[in-house]
Amino acid sequence: MEVRFGERVDDLGRGGLRIIQHPERFPFGMDPVLLAHFVTVRKDSRVLDLGTGCGIIPLLLSALHPTAVITGLEIQPDTADMAARSVALNGLEDRIRIDCGDYRHVRELYGHGKFDVVTLNPPYREPGTGAVSPAAGRATARHELAGDLGAALSAASVAVKYGGRVAVVFLAERLVDLLVQLRAVKLEPKRLRLIHPRAGRPANLLLLEAVKGGGPGLKVEPPLTVYAAGQTYSAELLALYNAYA
Amino acid sequence: MEVRFGERVDDLGRGGLRIIQHPERFPFGMDPVLLAHFVTVRKDSRVLDLGTGCGIIPLLLSALHPTAVITGLEIQPDTADMAARSVALNGLEDRIRIDCGDYRHVRELYGHGKFDVVTLNPPYREPGTGAVSPAAGRATARHELAGDLGAALSAASVAVKYGGRVAVVFLAERLVDLLVQLRAVKLEPKRLRLIHPRAGRPANLLLLEAVKGGGPGLKVEPPLTVYAAGQTYSAELLALYNAYA
Repeated sequence: MEVRFGERVDDLGRGGLRIIQHPERFPFGMDPVLLAHFVTVRKDSRVLDLGTGCGIIPLLLSALHPTAVITGLEIQPDTADMAARSVALNGLEDRIRIDCGDYRHVRELYGHGKFDVVTLNPPYREPGTGAVSPAAGRATARHELAGDLGAALSAASVAVKYGGRVAVVFLAERLVDLLVQLRAVKLEPKRLRLIHPRAGRPANLLLLEAVKGGGPGLKVEPPLTVYAAGQTYSAELLALYNAYA
Repeated sequence: MEVRFGERVDDLGRGGLRIIQHPERFPFGMDPVLLAHFVTVRKDSRVLDLGTGCGIIPLLLSALHPTAVITGLEIQPDTADMAARSVALNGLEDRIRIDCGDYRHVRELYGHGKFDVVTLNPPYREPGTGAVSPAAGRATARHELAGDLGAALSAASVAVKYGGRVAVVFLAERLVDLLVQLRAVKLEPKRLRLIHPRAGRPANLLLLEAVKGGGPGLKVEPPLTVYAAGQTYSAELLALYNAYA
């Protein structure tokens, strides 16, 4: 269970789960935690996490859904290797598999419709908007340099079975792009939840679950508010972070 | 100021405004009130209300925006006549004009891009879903019998000037249809507000403002909660109903 130079091991505070992270390679934030709690995962589900990074979503899902079998796909070899070592560190090799590859080749990698659920925490901003981090690992995760949103959703649509679910965390300001592009690849949006940093403030993030080949009709769930006051998390967010304790 | 058999005159509780309604012809509910308060109307704006019904949106906008000049277009002759009589009842003929016509002919009626703002409280459900009222007036308003959502949005896009705004109140469950079809007619969604009947419950309605030819980027505003507890309106909704008092 090797930890390399510059890496650190963090206790996730979730039933003893630990994760290896590298501060230069986009340490995970709140998004994967929100997504892991939002997505519908049934018994014995086969889950694919596209662009898994350090493997945080597979690790969280393994704790939340003890019968799920999860694959994480990551394009950057160093990051995929780090994710695989985190899986081994937790003794979860029988339930989580980390592959190094490009999600644009998902059909060649896995075939068509082989997963019940696909999760996606895609790069946030289009190239040329916002600041691009100088560190290459961060740049790939934060910006759509290695494929755009449409390509990621196409990959999800190929990988998921008919009637299966694709769950995404994304910027609220790009809701229209997301919904239009989901429909374009036959993923019908079925559940939407807006994340507001505080009550009375605009949403900055969204959680969206779509069904492959689903009929129209969206459920807009109650919003989630992150902070109750000052830097104190809301009761719901605290409960979510304590779900594994 | 004739009031006809079966009609009634209601005081809007807003600066003395009164409106003639007919119980068989879909008396207005909360939607037009929400929409009138949501839409951005600047000084001296020319506003078109598509499918104005009893004229409630023009009447409310005239009170909220004293320099706006408003046209209401209604396809049903009896309803358009009733709306025109409400305008006269309030002595607002110089600021509100009611036309009887089909919004699918909006270009022939008004030309292209002649309005700063278009408001739209479109029929709610697609034919074949939900109950269709036996009363013809109600059926036209509630269901998309006299044109579908796409036709209404096309009409709005023709009528509004480049850079002008189109504001819509619609079912939250049909958010995806609305956003996809707005973009298809070059109306870019810019502001979204979800209406939840109560805290912790899914949204049932939405308010959306789009800009003709606008760039991408949506602001998801804080949600509006209708009821605080039991049948007591929330503070925000009470304030909105008392805005004219």
